[in-house]
Parts: sequence; C-alpha cells; structure tokens
Amino acid sequence: MSFLQKISSNVKNIKQLEYSALAERTNQIREELRQGVRKPYGDVIDVSFGDPHRAGLKPLSFVRQVLAACLYPQLMNSDKLPADVRHRAQRLLESCVGESVGSYTATAGIPEIVQRLSEFITRRDGGVPSYPENIYISPGSQWALTNILKILVNTDGPSKTGVLISAPCHSITTLSILGLGAVPIPYYLNEDEGWTLQVEELQRALESAKKFCNPVALYIINPGNPAGPRHVQSTSSMQEVIRFVSEKRLFLLADEVYQGCVNGDNSKFVSYKKVLAEMGPPLSDTVELASFHSASKGFTGECGLRGGYVELVNLDPVVMKHIHTLFTTGSCAPVLGQIALDLMTNPPKPQEPSYPLYHQEVQHMRTTLAENGKKACEVLNSLPGFSCQPVEGGMFAFPRVFLPPRAIQRAKETGMQPDTFYCMRLLEEAGVLSMPGCDFGQKEGTYHIRLCIVIHKDIMENLLRHLANFHQKFMMDFC
Amino acid sequence: MSFLQKISSNVKNIKQLEYSALAERTNQIREELRQGVRKPYGDVIDVSFGDPHRAGLKPLSFVRQVLAACLYPQLMNSDKLPADVRHRAQRLLESCVGESVGSYTATAGIPEIVQRLSEFITRRDGGVPSYPENIYISPGSQWALTNILKILVNTDGPSKTGVLISAPCHSITTLSILGLGAVPIPYYLNEDEGWTLQVEELQRALESAKKFCNPVALYIINPGNPAGPRHVQSTSSMQEVIRFVSEKRLFLLADEVYQGCVNGDNSKFVSYKKVLAEMGPPLSDTVELASFHSASKGFTGECGLRGGYVELVNLDPVVMKHIHTLFTTGSCAPVLGQIALDLMTNPPKPQEPSYPLYHQEVQHMRTTLAENGKKACEVLNSLPGFSCQPVEGGMFAFPRVFLPPRAIQRAKETGMQPDTFYCMRLLEEAGVLSMPGCDFGQKEGTYHIRLCIVIHKDIMENLLRHLANFHQKFMMDFC
Repeated sequence: MSFLQKISSNVKNIKQLEYSALAERTNQIREELRQGVRKPYGDVIDVSFGDPHRAGLKPLSFVRQVLAACLYPQLMNSDKLPADVRHRAQRLLESCVGESVGSYTATAGIPEIVQRLSEFITRRDGGVPSYPENIYISPGSQWALTNILKILVNTDGPSKTGVLISAPCHSITTLSILGLGAVPIPYYLNEDEGWTLQVEELQRALESAKKFCNPVALYIINPGNPAGPRHVQSTSSMQEVIRFVSEKRLFLLADEVYQGCVNGDNSKFVSYKKVLAEMGPPLSDTVELASFHSASKGFTGECGLRGGYVELVNLDPVVMKHIHTLFTTGSCAPVLGQIALDLMTNPPKPQEPSYPLYHQEVQHMRTTLAENGKKACEVLNSLPGFSCQPVEGGMFAFPRVFLPPRAIQRAKETGMQPDTFYCMRLLEEAGVLSMPGCDFGQKEGTYHIRLCIVIHKDIMENLLRHLANFHQKFMMDFC
Repeated sequence: MSFLQKISSNVKNIKQLEYSALAERTNQIREELRQGVRKPYGDVIDVSFGDPHRAGLKPLSFVRQVLAACLYPQLMNSDKLPADVRHRAQRLLESCVGESVGSYTATAGIPEIVQRLSEFITRRDGGVPSYPENIYISPGSQWALTNILKILVNTDGPSKTGVLISAPCHSITTLSILGLGAVPIPYYLNEDEGWTLQVEELQRALESAKKFCNPVALYIINPGNPAGPRHVQSTSSMQEVIRFVSEKRLFLLADEVYQGCVNGDNSKFVSYKKVLAEMGPPLSDTVELASFHSASKGFTGECGLRGGYVELVNLDPVVMKHIHTLFTTGSCAPVLGQIALDLMTNPPKPQEPSYPLYHQEVQHMRTTLAENGKKACEVLNSLPGFSCQPVEGGMFAFPRVFLPPRAIQRAKETGMQPDTFYCMRLLEEAGVLSMPGCDFGQKEGTYHIRLCIVIHKDIMENLLRHLANFHQKFMMDFC
C-alpha cells in the first residue's frame, strides 16, 4: 500500500534495544498482578533506568519547592515556603520572558542561568575560566551530544565518519551515532582491572577503524555508565587520553553527567577541562573538547524535567558559528529543566533557611548510594558465577554473569541474547527489571546485567535477596 | 587550527533567521534602557513569538495549579487548591513511574495520557476513532514533525527528497527540512483572496520541483502561521487537498497546532483526519496522514513546558514499526509538558470546582484574541501602504507593507532585506519587536511583518499606536 518504499538506511540502523522486550513483559506482569494473578512477588522492582525516583528515592525538597513556586507564583504569598525558596523563585521568574515559565526562552538557554552555569564550572574547576558564550542548554545532555555529532559527522563524502565509543557504553549514544549515518567504533574497557581505559586499546580500535571509516572523535563517559575506568577515571589516565586525542587529531566528547555521583573513598571527580587546562600549552590551547552535564543525574535526578548543557572548549570560531546556529534555530529547552540545572549547580548556601534540609537530603542520598554500591558488590561477588567490580561512581552496578553453556544454548533456542534470557527469567521469576549487557556492548562471549543502585535502601535489600535466590536456582537449573 | 574542515552541507544549510539581528538589538536596547538611556518608549513590546505569556496574558490557573501540585505533592495536603485539582494531580502522579514527575516515562508518552489523547481526538472528530498506538508524545510538535520527516526523507539515493511547504510558512519547518538534506518546495498562498490555498498552485509547485528532486510530502499548517487559507481552511479546500495528495501519492503532514485558536464568526476548525474519514473509501483507507498538536498553542500557551504529539493515520505497518523505533529509543518528552497536553485536552468539566474560573479565563482569552484581531486589521488597513487580511484563526497578523522604492534602496545599502530593515526601524524608533516576512517566505517583491496578537488588550492598543505613528513617519521619510 505504502509509497514509502525507501526509508533511509540511517533510520533503518536504529534498532530497538533488547531491553524493549523486557519492558513490554513488565507491563504485562503488572497488569496480571492487578488482575490478581499470584506471583512470588507483589510488584516488579524496576532498576532498569538511572532515575532515582523510579525506585523509592524522594526528590530534593528545595528543588521542587522553587519549581512549584515558579509554576504557580501565588505560592510565594504564603509563608509555607522558606524565604530563600521564594526569593529564588522570584529572581528566576524575573529572568523568564513575561515572567512566566510558559514563555519560550532564548534558544541557547535563559541568559542569567547560562551565566551562572559558567560561574559554577569555574568554581568546580578551581578557577579555570568558563565563558557563557561557550555553553548551550538543551533538553537533556543527549540532545546536546547529538547536535555536536551533527557538526562532527560528514555525510557528503564517500567514506563514513567514525566515533570511538567505550564498550560497554550507554546505548542512546550508539543509536545517535548510527542515526546520523556514522559508525560507532568500540574500544573495550578492561573489566578485570576495574573497567580501566587503556590507551593501547584506543590505538587498536582507531587503527582497525581506519580501514572502513574516517574516525574524528573519541567519546568518553566518566564516571561511567554502565561502567567506567574504576567507575571514576584517574587524572593520569585522563592525561593519556588527552595526549592521544591531540596526537590523533580527534575531537574529545566528555560525557560527565555523573560528576555528582562519586562515592569511592579514594575517588574524586575531576573534569576533562580542568585536566586539560593544567597540562598547559600547546595541549590546553588546541585540544577540542565538549563536556556534557545534566539535571537528570546526580542527586538532583530530575530526569523527567529534561535539562542538560554542553560546554565547548578550543573550538574554531567558524565551527562555533555553525554550532551556535544549530542550537539557536530550534525551540528552547524546557524552562523547568533549565531551572533544575540552575538549582543543581547553585544549591542553598549554609546560611540560608533551606540549607539544613537540603544538606540532610543530599547526605542521605550519598550514604544510600555508597552503602548500596558496597552491599551490591558484596552480595553479587558472593554468588557463584557472578563477578562485580567495585562501584565508586555513577549510578550502576554492571556485574558479569558467567552463564552456563546450557543456559546459553537455551537462550539461542528462544531467539534471545544470553543475557537478555537471564534478565527475562530474573523478571519473570523474581520480579526484578534490569538491563542486559548486550544493549551496552561487551566483549564477545561475556555477559552482564545492569542494575541502578540509586534506590531506596530497603528496595536494594529486597532486590539483592530476590536476585540471589533466583540466581542460585537458575544456576542449578542449567548446570 | 581546527581539523573540522568538513562540516556537512546539511548543517551548512541551516542559516540564522533575519530575525536574529532584531533579537540581538532588542537585548542591547533593553540594556540601554536599564542604564538610563532616554528613548521614546519605556520598554520593548515583544510580539515576535506566538507565546501568550510573553506580552501580558496570564497562564490558566487550573493548569498551573495541577502542575504545581504534581511537582510538590505536599500542596495536596492543603485545601487552598480546589478538590478537582488535587484529585487530578493525584491521578496523574499515579501514572508517573515512582509517582514522580522526575522519573523517565515510557518514551512514547505516559500510557494513560496517550489513551486520553486518543479519546480527546475521537470526541473532537465526532466519533472518528483514534487509537493510542498511533499517537506519540514529543517535546513539542516540531520535534515530532522532524522525526516523521526523518522517515520520509531518503538520503541514500542520488536525488534529493522534496517536501511541499506553504509560503509563507513557519521558519522552523523549513529549517528542519533543510537540516535533513531535503528540499523545501514552496507553494504560494493567495494573499489577495485571504491567503487561500489553490490546488493549481500545488500542481505548479509539484511539477516544477520534479525537475530537481523527488517530492514525497505536502505540509499544511491550518489554522495558519503566519497566515493561512483565510487563516482557517474550508472543508471543500481540504477535500481538494486530500484528492491532490492521493492522486500524486504524497504523504500529508497536517500541522494543526492552532486548532484551539479560531475566532472568525464563520470559521470553525475541522481536522484533516475528520474530513478524510468523511470522504469514505478508497481515500479514507489510503491517504497517509500525520497530524500534529501542541500544548504551546491555543489558550493553554505553555510553550516553555515543551509538549506536543503526532497522530498517524493509514500508515503501512512496516513504516509504523520504524516510526515506533524512532520515537521510543531516545529519552521521553518533558513530563510536565505531557501533563500540560493532558490538561489542555481534558479541561475541567462544568460540575467541577475549577470550571467557573477556567471558563472565565478561556473566555477572556478568546475575546481578547477576537478583539485584537479585528482591531489590528482595522488600524493596519487604515494606514497608507499597509494591507492586512482578516485574522480568523491562529495567533498572528501578517500584514503586507508596500515599501517605497527609496526604503528598499536604503535597505540594500545596509545589507538588510527590505522588511528586516522596516522591522529594525520599527524596533529602534517605536520599541516594537516583530518578525520580518522574509523569514517565512513570500512572493518576490512583496514584504510583510508578523505580529502576535494573543497579547494583553492594553499592550495591543499601545502597539498599534506606536506602529501607526512610526509608519506614517517612515513613509514620509522615504517617499
């Protein structure tokens, strides 16, 4: 019937994740539970995504109070909201066109917020200067990344553009690259050494890719999702990466959305921009860098509001002009997402009335994350056939599962990837929704599952108990 | 310095609008005013965009109350909010993952909201059925349109894909088409007959385009932006369009975001889907249609929240599968934008406590829009060198300005398009920020300006007074 015979190969390259079958089955299971079907669990524990509110953590009161007051300014007439909340909301509304969060803003973002983001970055990086004209706010960091990729990917010539990405890597990045007609080039992180990044592996991946595409950029996510170099990369490793991209003339895409989530005793987040600046010229003047951040991650965790930004460093002014056009000819980012970014990067100060509660809530999340990370590793590593690297940053555990050959065989018979098969059984029998490693990229013959650990402590305990019981039964069934 | 020599021609095709110089100058003028520079106006009247809150109209209280309660559920414990608001917020939160608007939702949209959207469409179209599986929520209708364009535009073959668009047309649509490497093919609306659409003109545009591209779709915006067929298209004209796309095997893109903004005495919005259904088979079973709507437009006017949707009709299941993948592999639309869509299409019912105020606020906007439209036409048509078609729908007046040859000459000397030159003088001397017709496409040798008329009545009067004074002086200066 259709005359749409010819869908672009770029579109055809975008495939559903294996996870989508799990999400679909979860909806069915929930419907069955509603209809009274008896199962060994009362509801599904959903740790598939990295959003803290999904599994029991509460939003930060300060953030929600300011946002509610911006939406419904009549709330500012009541003294039920702390004075600093009302003051903050008033000031934010004055930055909105027509004093309403319902108006379009400048498409690069509300200028006052962009200015404050640059001040936050300067503070964070110990004085390395940041300039508002290099910052663009977007509906989430992934959106900004896709825009920068549009600039990097050339579709005119005969050879395809390549982008080096870690394996494992967040799936949306891979899909963005494919959707633009470019080629993702996986470089494998070394799991046995805590998911470290090794320059020799970057070198190998780059050389092998040169045979079939034109590699122009290196994408790194630090702290990692689903895993990363010891989850938080060391400064010396970052310096190696910077020298590598400089020598190979690659653009550096630094996804730093988990910068607020670092919990290892010896781990500390340092931005690529800071490390680059400290390496001095010529590197600090020449390496082209885009750094991404988001209100969806860290302890703010406002994924549903959609707000992120990119900061650009050392770009050619001609390229910046095209980037500016790309970011300023569409619609603006959601205004409440922009405000959430501002609140995340400018939390209440110690002398302000909202500070004590804010501090307490953030501390609670921090403790939860650290304890959950430790607990998850302990329990998972105690199970036969599981191996989990320490979680010192980010929001996920990404343990390896050594699946018995009979399980792999059964998976093949059912047309599933082996780890999807495992995740499907885990969902069906234990009511735990996770993501399979195959959606992130992994070494041939290895299998993983991803679990979000920024969840309520009690849910974490439940989850681990269910998982442990299930796993022991699974291993018995297939050994 | 840069190794980014080769930016794709698609990206290079995206150009800044002429308007951007006006926006930049507005920021400077506002800064000058803040610093005490004396001007013949105290602030700039900004009627450049179609967002009601920009120029003095207030958001709907019901919408803002529900949104605030969803963000900060503690508000539901107070009886300051009407019972139906609290009930509505509670129900919405139960549809959110983890009962938080901060969680990701299903990427196609919150299922309960998608279901209610389909019920709204069915009601609106007098019973023509709508199915939730054909609806996708997105961060604004333009985003959904770009996704559908990705499916329509083929970049693999040697010949470019063409999309017929009205001239004048909303600039973001043109830029989306260019950004995907396709060709916008303008068909001119007949200004003298109230911006009517004529099938002979579609025919002409299509035939001339076949020489250099492969036309696959027809884009129509009804009610129009900046102008449209008598601003609201007649059913007979829509039937002609449907027969045309069927005969020429074109996909029909119906941008219906202004469906809530119809104010002419004899005008009524009817959707393309309804007209198509009433034409019966074979047309009603075969014409492929995408219809777009948005929470940014109409009397809800929540542009800053970013929520829109597309409904697809008669698509090949294989194509639908690709569309589904495209809409479900990224991040979800902003949750508050999704909720705004739900509230727009399910306003309070007459027996509910919020109804009286809601009804009063909407009526106020409706009256304001109708009166502003009439008033604008009256005043503009009374000025020498102005001609304005009646405004019976949409949110804009798009008068033609007959610029004197000396003004056109002067514009050329300053490197500006003639209507940009006019708008710049209007801004500089009268403090009115409008958009020039050249950003929308217009017949060679004609010049227009676009003014948003969904603004406070007093601001409208001020605007027209300033504009009239300025225009008389401008014409004297250049005649």
